[in-house]
Amino acid sequence: MTIVLQDLAGADPALRFSPYCWRARMALAHKGLAVETIPWRFTEKAALAFSGQGRVPVIRDGDRVMSDSWAIAEYLEDTYPDRPSLFGGAAGRAHALFVNAWADGVMLGGIARLIVRDLLDVVAPQDRTYFRESREARFGMTLEAVQAGRETRVAEFRASLLPVRQVLGKQPWLGGENPSYADYIVFGTLQWPRCASRFELLESDDPIAAWRERMLDLFDGMGRKAKTV
Amino acid sequence: MTIVLQDLAGADPALRFSPYCWRARMALAHKGLAVETIPWRFTEKAALAFSGQGRVPVIRDGDRVMSDSWAIAEYLEDTYPDRPSLFGGAAGRAHALFVNAWADGVMLGGIARLIVRDLLDVVAPQDRTYFRESREARFGMTLEAVQAGRETRVAEFRASLLPVRQVLGKQPWLGGENPSYADYIVFGTLQWPRCASRFELLESDDPIAAWRERMLDLFDGMGRKAKTV
Repeated sequence: MTIVLQDLAGADPALRFSPYCWRARMALAHKGLAVETIPWRFTEKAALAFSGQGRVPVIRDGDRVMSDSWAIAEYLEDTYPDRPSLFGGAAGRAHALFVNAWADGVMLGGIARLIVRDLLDVVAPQDRTYFRESREARFGMTLEAVQAGRETRVAEFRASLLPVRQVLGKQPWLGGENPSYADYIVFGTLQWPRCASRFELLESDDPIAAWRERMLDLFDGMGRKAKTV
Repeated sequence: MTIVLQDLAGADPALRFSPYCWRARMALAHKGLAVETIPWRFTEKAALAFSGQGRVPVIRDGDRVMSDSWAIAEYLEDTYPDRPSLFGGAAGRAHALFVNAWADGVMLGGIARLIVRDLLDVVAPQDRTYFRESREARFGMTLEAVQAGRETRVAEFRASLLPVRQVLGKQPWLGGENPSYADYIVFGTLQWPRCASRFELLESDDPIAAWRERMLDLFDGMGRKAKTV
């Protein structure tokens, strides 16, 4: 049975840019599970009422409903153990949670401060007021002020990716010889700016950029085929 | 056969404070391997000549010699596969490398900037000139200047530990239900300031402090029994 994924979309319903939804989409593809995505906008809270909360990703798998990208990855691993493993065992899962916490705590905030004003240009018209007000409340300043000076500040963001760069200097994927959910966490997070902004976060000679190209090729080029602004 | 570990020592030979040596000692204990430690000082490069390089940890296991804490952990895992696993499989090992890179890139520099002047007071007399000159060259300023203002700067270091804190909010150890080498990486790094400085890096109500207490209890209280200044 096809799994249904509620997936954040922009004004253009083909533009899908949620870092968390990208993690879930890559995990579903890794498991080889058929998925139908439904475009969802920030203000469509009622459309997620069936999940008991108001954020995407949400998946419906038959009569089971899961939200939160990490919980979805665990659900897929536990429900489909005979398909390729996302975590490679209990310790692999436990250690991947560290990558997840690092991406949430370091990458997401770092990227938001570089592209949050760009995001306003791609969200659906009905989401614009919600998006500006909620994000300006979070940052305590206008979206324009948050994003100002990014051409120089991007160097600091690139430096913060050092652990990823160092690991990729020793092995081809964060998962080792093969991609794992750790790769999807970091790649999914990078698909957010890649799809929703024209501001390039990675230098072309960064090993992370080369890894991202290989990630974009996975699953018949799923990431590469995705709409970008 | 007892494994011999060259272990950084201070003026007091009982004071062992290298973050990398602590990682190796915890890994050896996890594997249940008997170890004899030999105190080593920064300027005793000749004593490590047999290892082909000049830094500790170095282990001698029969006729095999290994240096570099990560390489030692991999060596122990591969050489003693029937003993408790440090990594829990290939993905667990691959993901632990991310924790290692993060600890090296974020924790070590953050801690050095808080305690590097204190270290000068504990290193062996013959190491003092080497230590000051090499570290001042690295930082481009005096040890006193590096360490200045730590009472306020420590908040930034504590914030940088967010990924560890978040993981420990969801599971008892970085390794999940049991300690893994990921725990030894972070714990070993924290033994450095704990043994060599009286400056407290963790707030008492930090979940990381509670986890550290449990780490100190492992292996018959090996970490807790260690000499501190």
